[in-house]
Amino acid sequence: LKLISAAPIRWEERNVTAIKGPGGKWMIPPDAKESMDRSKIGLKGPLKTPIAAGHPSMNLLLRKTFDLYANVRPCVSIEGYKTPYTDVDLVTIRENTEGEYSGIEHVIVDGVVQSIKLITENASRRIAEYAFEYARNNQRSSVTAVHKANIMRMSDGLFLRKCREVAENYKDIKFTEMYLDTVCLNMVQDPTQFDVLVMPNLYGDILSDLCAGLIGGLGVTPSGNIGANGVAIFESVHGTAPDIAGLDLANPTALLLSAVMMLRHMGLHEYASRIQTACFDTIRDKKVLTKDLGGNSKCSEFTSEICHRVQDLA
Amino acid sequence: LKLISAAPIRWEERNVTAIKGPGGKWMIPPDAKESMDRSKIGLKGPLKTPIAAGHPSMNLLLRKTFDLYANVRPCVSIEGYKTPYTDVDLVTIRENTEGEYSGIEHVIVDGVVQSIKLITENASRRIAEYAFEYARNNQRSSVTAVHKANIMRMSDGLFLRKCREVAENYKDIKFTEMYLDTVCLNMVQDPTQFDVLVMPNLYGDILSDLCAGLIGGLGVTPSGNIGANGVAIFESVHGTAPDIAGLDLANPTALLLSAVMMLRHMGLHEYASRIQTACFDTIRDKKVLTKDLGGNSKCSEFTSEICHRVQDLA
Ligand SMILES: CC(C)[C@H](C(=O)O)[C@@H](O)C(=O)O
Ligand SMILES: CC(C)[C@H](C(=O)O)[C@@H](O)C(=O)O
Repeated sequence: LKLISAAPIRWEERNVTAIKGPGGKWMIPPDAKESMDRSKIGLKGPLKTPIAAGHPSMNLLLRKTFDLYANVRPCVSIEGYKTPYTDVDLVTIRENTEGEYSGIEHVIVDGVVQSIKLITENASRRIAEYAFEYARNNQRSSVTAVHKANIMRMSDGLFLRKCREVAENYKDIKFTEMYLDTVCLNMVQDPTQFDVLVMPNLYGDILSDLCAGLIGGLGVTPSGNIGANGVAIFESVHGTAPDIAGLDLANPTALLLSAVMMLRHMGLHEYASRIQTACFDTIRDKKVLTKDLGGNSKCSEFTSEICHRVQDLA
Repeated sequence: LKLISAAPIRWEERNVTAIKGPGGKWMIPPDAKESMDRSKIGLKGPLKTPIAAGHPSMNLLLRKTFDLYANVRPCVSIEGYKTPYTDVDLVTIRENTEGEYSGIEHVIVDGVVQSIKLITENASRRIAEYAFEYARNNQRSSVTAVHKANIMRMSDGLFLRKCREVAENYKDIKFTEMYLDTVCLNMVQDPTQFDVLVMPNLYGDILSDLCAGLIGGLGVTPSGNIGANGVAIFESVHGTAPDIAGLDLANPTALLLSAVMMLRHMGLHEYASRIQTACFDTIRDKKVLTKDLGGNSKCSEFTSEICHRVQDLA
């Protein structure tokens, strides 16, 4: 936070742990909700999902409460951090509110369970529009719709149809469609062929983790959950790593890069670029690195190094 | 077929293209059905899915007609065929009859569609048992259940519970469970950590293609669809590649290795090993290779080379 505080931001810290509301429904505590409603922007630390048996997933509750319908995860190869892949530069854009995450499940008869995947025209159009707008605003040239409409002909079929319709309005952006299985296969063979990918909820969950793996894992991949009217929550996607809690060993890169996404979202581009450059320079120089990045430094040392570089860049 | 005919097999060729039965329902032609019912074993060439608009997927119809409940896809690194990964040696075992492939979909109201994922106790237990039996019979030491029971708590929850129960009966095999997204992430970072993986239908579709990508793609990965009482259909997973039809350019490796799986299934182990060795030796020597494998040879030349080697091994 110290780092990001170089930017003109007034922080309000809020605990979002769900509480039981009047009707027994889980909800975000009112003071956290009020803060988000007012500021519109959140930076979220990793949370356990679920916190305890019977608790809802906090990630899902936050996405739902603030209608954060677009989950955006850029995956860009990091110079100096070696993986089997180079020049990865893609973005997964995941529908974040429905699909397989509807939460609707039933026992039909004993031993027979159904889960309902819900796809709506509105949510599909909205996420397709988001993807094309994102492509246009970020100088990206193509959008690929990822689906299994050969199997889920009606639900994925609807999603795909909306993507096609929206594509009509973005003639400057190339539109392609591809089966999810084919994307996975092509992705591990040559990820550089992909640019912006848009897809229903579960496929995004899978594909964004796969892509994170290509560039070095969840320790280095940021994400943003975007809603209407500028509302957004940025978060690292990794878990809480309770095994290293308090040991000053965590890698803050994913959270930092999420903050960079946040600053860009707020129009604070210079601040964003400085932090991003300092972070990538630190990794490229390989002198001060956390363990998971291949070094011996503590989290605090790695962060100090980045802080110094941010000052030098200012 | 010439090659595999070195083995004591009497071939019956059947066209499985679906026809409309009495009640207007799509079905496998009676003579193909009769042949499979009698011989129990099939080797299937690639089919377009679907053949035409309104047609059912032939792959799915075959799996359903013969209740081929286990889709087995071994992924093993091929010496001499370079990919970013070495020493991959895993098997995906996919539930092949239900899940997201139930085919049950509805329009709820205009613009709102639901697809039903169906998970049953019986199918889950059956595939878990298959996976553990497979592990035991193939000298494999661990089975990983792949799921999203944090999201689909009831359906994937049921699947996972059955895996856990079955695991109790196989104390010689290590059992682990992992989220699908985590598997994807770990898979591209280090696939050698995986052994046998068992999962619901769609996850298997995705993961088997991802894994195929790691070892060189669908041109080299075999598969088997296994039912009860020895019934099985083996197939290459790739499509029909209409762009190279008739040009003698196809890579027959996936179909050949599927035939090798078939011979093993029939207990014809020596024949299987000879063909497999001849095929892998040919690839390792790099002298006669099809284009997609990095060579200049025709499909017929590649196949002849393997045939000669099979004879030399006999
Ligand atoms: C923690 C879990 C609920 C979540 C998901 O499945 O969406 C996570 O995997 C993610 O990708 O943000
Ligand atoms: C062709 C298609 C119906 C099939 C599937 O989705 O199962 C294919 O991708 C496969 O993996 O066998």
